[in-house]
Amino acid sequence: MEKGKAPRDLRRLLRVPAGKRIDLSTYGTRATPAGPKNKQAGRAATARMGKRLADLQERLWAAATTGDRRRLLLVLQGMDTSGKGGTVKHVVGLFNPAGCRVMGFKAPTPEEREHHFLWRVEKELPRPGEIGAFDRSHYEDVLVARVRALAPPDEIERRYEEINRFEQFLADDRVTVIKCFLHISYEEQRHRLLRRLDRPDKRWKFSPGDIDDRALWPAYQEAYEIALHRCTAPHAPWYVIPADRKWYRDWAVARLLLEHLQALDPQYPEPDYDVAESRERLLGE
Amino acid sequence: MEKGKAPRDLRRLLRVPAGKRIDLSTYGTRATPAGPKNKQAGRAATARMGKRLADLQERLWAAATTGDRRRLLLVLQGMDTSGKGGTVKHVVGLFNPAGCRVMGFKAPTPEEREHHFLWRVEKELPRPGEIGAFDRSHYEDVLVARVRALAPPDEIERRYEEINRFEQFLADDRVTVIKCFLHISYEEQRHRLLRRLDRPDKRWKFSPGDIDDRALWPAYQEAYEIALHRCTAPHAPWYVIPADRKWYRDWAVARLLLEHLQALDPQYPEPDYDVAESRERLLGE
Repeated sequence: MEKGKAPRDLRRLLRVPAGKRIDLSTYGTRATPAGPKNKQAGRAATARMGKRLADLQERLWAAATTGDRRRLLLVLQGMDTSGKGGTVKHVVGLFNPAGCRVMGFKAPTPEEREHHFLWRVEKELPRPGEIGAFDRSHYEDVLVARVRALAPPDEIERRYEEINRFEQFLADDRVTVIKCFLHISYEEQRHRLLRRLDRPDKRWKFSPGDIDDRALWPAYQEAYEIALHRCTAPHAPWYVIPADRKWYRDWAVARLLLEHLQALDPQYPEPDYDVAESRERLLGE
Repeated sequence: MEKGKAPRDLRRLLRVPAGKRIDLSTYGTRATPAGPKNKQAGRAATARMGKRLADLQERLWAAATTGDRRRLLLVLQGMDTSGKGGTVKHVVGLFNPAGCRVMGFKAPTPEEREHHFLWRVEKELPRPGEIGAFDRSHYEDVLVARVRALAPPDEIERRYEEINRFEQFLADDRVTVIKCFLHISYEEQRHRLLRRLDRPDKRWKFSPGDIDDRALWPAYQEAYEIALHRCTAPHAPWYVIPADRKWYRDWAVARLLLEHLQALDPQYPEPDYDVAESRERLLGE
């Protein structure tokens, strides 16, 4: 592959391999395994993708008006400060907001806790033609739930299979699920948390609990390794995104969305009316 | 006012005056009553507003995390092709999609028809901290419903007052409602409909029914005049946006949003934790 050139298929390069558990410590958080090699080139490449992404989104949306049920769901997971919100802002922000459905999942409310853990997720799924984005997701129920023992171990065990069945159901219903683990280093998180403390306009994003969670870093990494291993599938793959460099993270997620949309190849529907006749009517008024 | 300079308050300039019915035919559709005077300057001015809009949105969002219930609701109405969708794309697209809630209202579904006409609208209201946008709205129930007699006259009559009470309720609940009528001319609509027919990627947006609606143009203009007259209020004003020039329409709506957000003046919340102590903990790990 030519240096600095985008690969023909970033999906293949970043996808978690099926069959064996990965070791996240062997995945570089500052790596730029394909595509642009510096911030300036990265930001420019992402911006250039904007028009193509919005064009493909409009085709997907248009196709839905005549019954095409296809849509995209971007699932963003990662440690605090890994850039889930930034990815929504910079990548989902490239699309037309009319066709986007963004949901940030927080700790479940009392009402949500009364239901099955997938209940609140199903309500926020993208409708046909839409681009959905989850900032955190149903995976929290096998991540924080596992690390902090918020549910009995056998319940957590069952959830992996429930997630797999749920995502198979989504695939059957024509939802393309793209799951991205934003992979940052322990040091980078410290740097970003300090930045939140140093900037008055960032302090509201910080909570002292974020530091408590850092003490559980190895347990979280393990929980991610298990979730990525047990819940990656051809119809709903996990991708590991090197996320210490924000510009690379944005480029990689945008590129994955682009490749998936290009593979869907949505088409504008053919008119179900007589174009020439309508033109004459308009001109003859 | 200096030529080409933005006015100190576009709200005052474009707001429908209370108390008397307006005559839409006296409102210019190609006018540029304030602000930029050509496309290049207009597009640049709108882009420049993007950063300030997104910054104010983040403050609004941050304030909501500590209980501030304020939010914005942009209501877009106008004839077919008046640019409601384009305004969402180009103006709402300036915000962070994580904090936007966009809804396009179509002809009511059978389920929606079983409910009060405001039922489907209430479900889609912006949550605290959000920027909501309606592409069509509850006003359809006094516009198309009036022109096509989809409800008995006394029912339509009651709806104006119900809308006023509803919007008063929204104001009480800290929703800033900004209602924009995108005003285009009969000739401009013909031009835009022809364009939809001429471009294969636009044909899906066209329906022969759009031409039937053109025959009812005067009735629609009258229905708008009545709705704008009866449902403009200090807490939920109507604005008439000259919309034949897309760049001016986008600039004017962006500018109205900016003025309203600046008036709200949302502030980042003060941290409820000890910043210095957290910093020490992070550095001492």
